[in-house]
Amino acid sequence: MSLLVTGSIGIDTVKTPYGVSENCLGGSAVYFSMSASFFSPVRLIGVIGSDCPFDLARVFADRNVDLTGLEVREQSKTFRWAGSYQDNMDDRKTDYMELNVLAEEPPGVPAEYKDSEFVFLANTAPALQHQLLEQIESPVFVAADTMNCWIEDQLDDLTGLLKKIDCLIVNDEEARMLADERNLIKAAEVILGMGPGVVVVKKGESGSITCTADGEIFILPAYPATKVKDPTGAGDSFAGALMGYLAQKGKTDFDSLKTAIAYGTVVASFTIADFSLEGLTSINKTDIDNRLETLRKLTQF
Amino acid sequence: MSLLVTGSIGIDTVKTPYGVSENCLGGSAVYFSMSASFFSPVRLIGVIGSDCPFDLARVFADRNVDLTGLEVREQSKTFRWAGSYQDNMDDRKTDYMELNVLAEEPPGVPAEYKDSEFVFLANTAPALQHQLLEQIESPVFVAADTMNCWIEDQLDDLTGLLKKIDCLIVNDEEARMLADERNLIKAAEVILGMGPGVVVVKKGESGSITCTADGEIFILPAYPATKVKDPTGAGDSFAGALMGYLAQKGKTDFDSLKTAIAYGTVVASFTIADFSLEGLTSINKTDIDNRLETLRKLTQF
Repeated sequence: MSLLVTGSIGIDTVKTPYGVSENCLGGSAVYFSMSASFFSPVRLIGVIGSDCPFDLARVFADRNVDLTGLEVREQSKTFRWAGSYQDNMDDRKTDYMELNVLAEEPPGVPAEYKDSEFVFLANTAPALQHQLLEQIESPVFVAADTMNCWIEDQLDDLTGLLKKIDCLIVNDEEARMLADERNLIKAAEVILGMGPGVVVVKKGESGSITCTADGEIFILPAYPATKVKDPTGAGDSFAGALMGYLAQKGKTDFDSLKTAIAYGTVVASFTIADFSLEGLTSINKTDIDNRLETLRKLTQF
Repeated sequence: MSLLVTGSIGIDTVKTPYGVSENCLGGSAVYFSMSASFFSPVRLIGVIGSDCPFDLARVFADRNVDLTGLEVREQSKTFRWAGSYQDNMDDRKTDYMELNVLAEEPPGVPAEYKDSEFVFLANTAPALQHQLLEQIESPVFVAADTMNCWIEDQLDDLTGLLKKIDCLIVNDEEARMLADERNLIKAAEVILGMGPGVVVVKKGESGSITCTADGEIFILPAYPATKVKDPTGAGDSFAGALMGYLAQKGKTDFDSLKTAIAYGTVVASFTIADFSLEGLTSINKTDIDNRLETLRKLTQF
């Protein structure tokens, strides 16, 4: 089935204890699309300025990523983000952020995308996520990401959005904040009560917990990565593989969802092994499948 | 096969957001024995003073815990510990600790315990753990716990001990400190290089990672407990079920070890559901087996 993503395309500068990657390609829609394309064709919606040094058609060559929804604004500048990771690779500091074109009117949904069935709304203001979603005629399965600033400042918009989506993907601190509950299982239950049928809580190097409105629970550790150079994009890669697998299967039953989450976990482990998209562009589907089987073996008893 | 534990027996006062439990029975050897006794007979070595208000023979009635190694010193006072847990149930503050009898000569190993095959050395000074272990004639599988203060202050004793044991069970921060390495897989590998064939790294509500000198890895999330009243004793209960299951099986191959860790995870989830030993005394082996199957179901894909 068709898979649509809307999110950011950015010029990133990332510092980690392993080095610096200056002015590299980043953004949620980019990581998502690269990851999802191992499983399914992807329709991308995003906007850049004329200063963008990356040829996205070339970046996604042979990857079945439809760039009809990519808008280039001649008078605008591309979103830029710079961040630093501390020694523990968990604490991230934003060194600077220039919203640039992301502060303007969001890109529209091309007519040929309006029949999209699987939709991922990457992190942005919930009102924008909502506005985009309303342009899709009859989505089958909609997932969204969010973050602490929207929970704090635009909670009404966010709770409105939660009634319209099928799956919320958040990290543990965001789940706790949104639910006002520290226990993650209870927090997920509170969020399920806000609307979505599925809540995926990401716990970084401790994996994820997924709860459904049907009372199903799935707990999966992270892949035990020993090579971690740059965690940027891990969450969007996770979401990309998850949604890509579901779109490929055309199903969202719980067994499919569990496999999708396992694929998300595995692809994220490749993303963090190198800077920018290097970890994803240097692998193939067989590498992913092999690591999935390893993860299965490491977690079964 | 026979299972020996040496550890503390204490009078605990515990405060959590759910209430206060004053002057209740605690101590590593007590939690370990109660947990292990679901699987195997246990031989306990411990020492108390004449002030101890608990009749341990009655506490362990019908539980197949041999108290030949329990020493009561008429002139001494029992170990006392008081601690408080913060809202997140992770941060624990020691309010006071009176070593009392634990600061005296340790209890001896009764002649009828010297042939013990499975041995657990609960957390104490590594020199004392070593001294006890030397009194066991030909142990089959020895596991030990330790903590940050011994890593900081008695590292030579600890590294000496690590050469003599088969399995170290530590929490994530202790593993990182001992190995001087943040990545837990790499940290476990460093510790394996110090001697033990198995390292179990406990991650609290995020489960555990187990690595062996043969290159095997097992990663298991915690049971998704929504009822958490008092985390005291979780680690010793984990170790008790782990060692109890191995002693019952009389095997330490990797498949047995994985099941043992799953049992440890499940029994710990019962321990934390209530104060002191209430969580363990209110369940039976069927409850444990049922929860083990639930944990298997929650983690498989």
